[in-house]
Amino acid sequence: MTDSVYTYRQLQDFTLQIFDKIGCPPAEATLATDVLLNADLRGIDSHGIARLSGYVRLWEAKRINATPAVRIVHESPSTAVVDGDSGLGLVVAPKAMEIAIAKAKVAGTGWVAVKNSNHFGIAGHHAMMALEHDMIGIAMTNASPLVAPTFSIERLLGTNPIAVAIPAGSQPPFVADFATTTAANGKLEILQRKNQQAPIGWIQTKDGKPSTDPNEAKSGGALIPLGSDREHGSHKGYCLGAWVDIFSAVLSGANYGPWVPPFVAFLSPPSDPVGDGIGHFFGAMRVDAFRPAADFKHHMDNWITRFRAAKPIEGQERVLIPGDPEREMSAQRMHEGIPLNPKVVEDLKILGERFGLVLA
Amino acid sequence: MTDSVYTYRQLQDFTLQIFDKIGCPPAEATLATDVLLNADLRGIDSHGIARLSGYVRLWEAKRINATPAVRIVHESPSTAVVDGDSGLGLVVAPKAMEIAIAKAKVAGTGWVAVKNSNHFGIAGHHAMMALEHDMIGIAMTNASPLVAPTFSIERLLGTNPIAVAIPAGSQPPFVADFATTTAANGKLEILQRKNQQAPIGWIQTKDGKPSTDPNEAKSGGALIPLGSDREHGSHKGYCLGAWVDIFSAVLSGANYGPWVPPFVAFLSPPSDPVGDGIGHFFGAMRVDAFRPAADFKHHMDNWITRFRAAKPIEGQERVLIPGDPEREMSAQRMHEGIPLNPKVVEDLKILGERFGLVLA
Repeated sequence: MTDSVYTYRQLQDFTLQIFDKIGCPPAEATLATDVLLNADLRGIDSHGIARLSGYVRLWEAKRINATPAVRIVHESPSTAVVDGDSGLGLVVAPKAMEIAIAKAKVAGTGWVAVKNSNHFGIAGHHAMMALEHDMIGIAMTNASPLVAPTFSIERLLGTNPIAVAIPAGSQPPFVADFATTTAANGKLEILQRKNQQAPIGWIQTKDGKPSTDPNEAKSGGALIPLGSDREHGSHKGYCLGAWVDIFSAVLSGANYGPWVPPFVAFLSPPSDPVGDGIGHFFGAMRVDAFRPAADFKHHMDNWITRFRAAKPIEGQERVLIPGDPEREMSAQRMHEGIPLNPKVVEDLKILGERFGLVLA
Repeated sequence: MTDSVYTYRQLQDFTLQIFDKIGCPPAEATLATDVLLNADLRGIDSHGIARLSGYVRLWEAKRINATPAVRIVHESPSTAVVDGDSGLGLVVAPKAMEIAIAKAKVAGTGWVAVKNSNHFGIAGHHAMMALEHDMIGIAMTNASPLVAPTFSIERLLGTNPIAVAIPAGSQPPFVADFATTTAANGKLEILQRKNQQAPIGWIQTKDGKPSTDPNEAKSGGALIPLGSDREHGSHKGYCLGAWVDIFSAVLSGANYGPWVPPFVAFLSPPSDPVGDGIGHFFGAMRVDAFRPAADFKHHMDNWITRFRAAKPIEGQERVLIPGDPEREMSAQRMHEGIPLNPKVVEDLKILGERFGLVLA
């Protein structure tokens, strides 16, 4: 079966209605829809509308609050801890990022750790909110444990992504957004659907042996930190994943490491939580807190232009700037539509029927 | 030939006298010696006393100022840009980190970008300065271009390390400190000395082909970003190295990318600089700007204890916490002495003779 293609508007209408049906007020439903569908636009299909039914199931399991009172529980001039009140991460995260931006306007930078939240879509979306303010944006989140630290057979970390968005002048912004594992879980899901093997270095068996089976995590195996093995620096990927976990959850008071609750509703959260929900961490840095914004942007344009002009390896078309592939994909999909895998379409149709909605 | 072993005190006396001879005031000489020798203690031999003659040659080439006026040139409540006045990075960096710590005391966090500096030793040393203040410390620096971005045959980035130091309670602190390449340049230097081959994934030829020759960079080859190749996430390592470069140099007004001046005095800096010297970036975050320090430390202890207790892969003794190997090495070398490679000893003896000093 081939993918079906939907316009952004079709998916937007459907998603808005679903969020409305589960009780999200209109402003929150709009926010959540923007975040979720930005993943589909940018080509990170695993984090977009494919997860909509997952969020609904968490809501049905009473693990997501559709009308959260997101609030600051601790703060300093440049920091805050936000309690997400078990809200949709898709709503809590942009609200927390707005707080970071507001702090940065006054203090130069703003740093917000969030507890009691849920999965927040793509990290890049939240980091990019800073750009229109001539700020650098940073977003991180922890996630349910799928990743084994170097030398471990136990899964203690999530794929814990980091996003950094940096404004430029005439050039498009620099936007890095990546899981701190060799490969994101979404890439394994693609291999699972296609019944293909993974490269060595992405996953290990339940005994910690190298594996090429993309289903390995379902039988106790684990994803591997960026670096693939000790000789190629997997301990550095482990450091990065740990950094994200500690900033997102130990600073905020959320669950960390193996205590992070699962995204899927059919698995129960650990019975011995060490905090509230999952955690995120956001940063906003006014570039003119360091040098005049025009100077900064001029040099970012020069940086980007120079790296873009680098001589490519034979067989490669060009050297990319972080954010290039996703920006180009976004423009293409806004114009040509968003392809959805048949399994995702089926899942969405079932979801729609339960609420009396039709995916047009 | 085997290594010679020196006590910390012997190397400290020698290094202090060398810095004195090149005109460093006593306080600055002490600061620089502490930073430099901390690398030897922690087992990062490439960044320690082995580099002392390199710093002296840069001073002789008038590219290092022994009596810099390190000063803030731009600031906001939580940020500053520091001009290092061409000082030793070993002196400029701890002074800039002190500014970050002072900002954090008032604003919750402090973020300092530095221009017009030189190589600063090990990033971890500076990040760890935050610990005694119950703060998280962050340190980054750019460096001369040895690394090719993914798909590039040109070298546009340094090995651009990131260090993050996080305080705990009864447990030792979490200290991550790593180059954003698959392997640090120091590891290649070890292979060069031993005449051994490198694993595939560390370096590429001048045409961008995989190589195992640790001398490849001397004939136009390049180090590879963390990840080793595109399939294993080298684009993520490229993002990390780029992030460090931009924070260190585009925020501060230092040279970035291919314009970063070389550490070795026999190579001239680029004739078309885009900024001043090399750049660093430091952060200090008061943990009690997020939650009471005792709560934070209690949960860090729990995090560390849980990860340390992870079941190891067969054949591995244990799962490590970032900072464990360096802390253990430091205790051992403080007690048993610091082994120096014969080539390093020879180099130091020649250096000593020029200044009428004997390496005891």
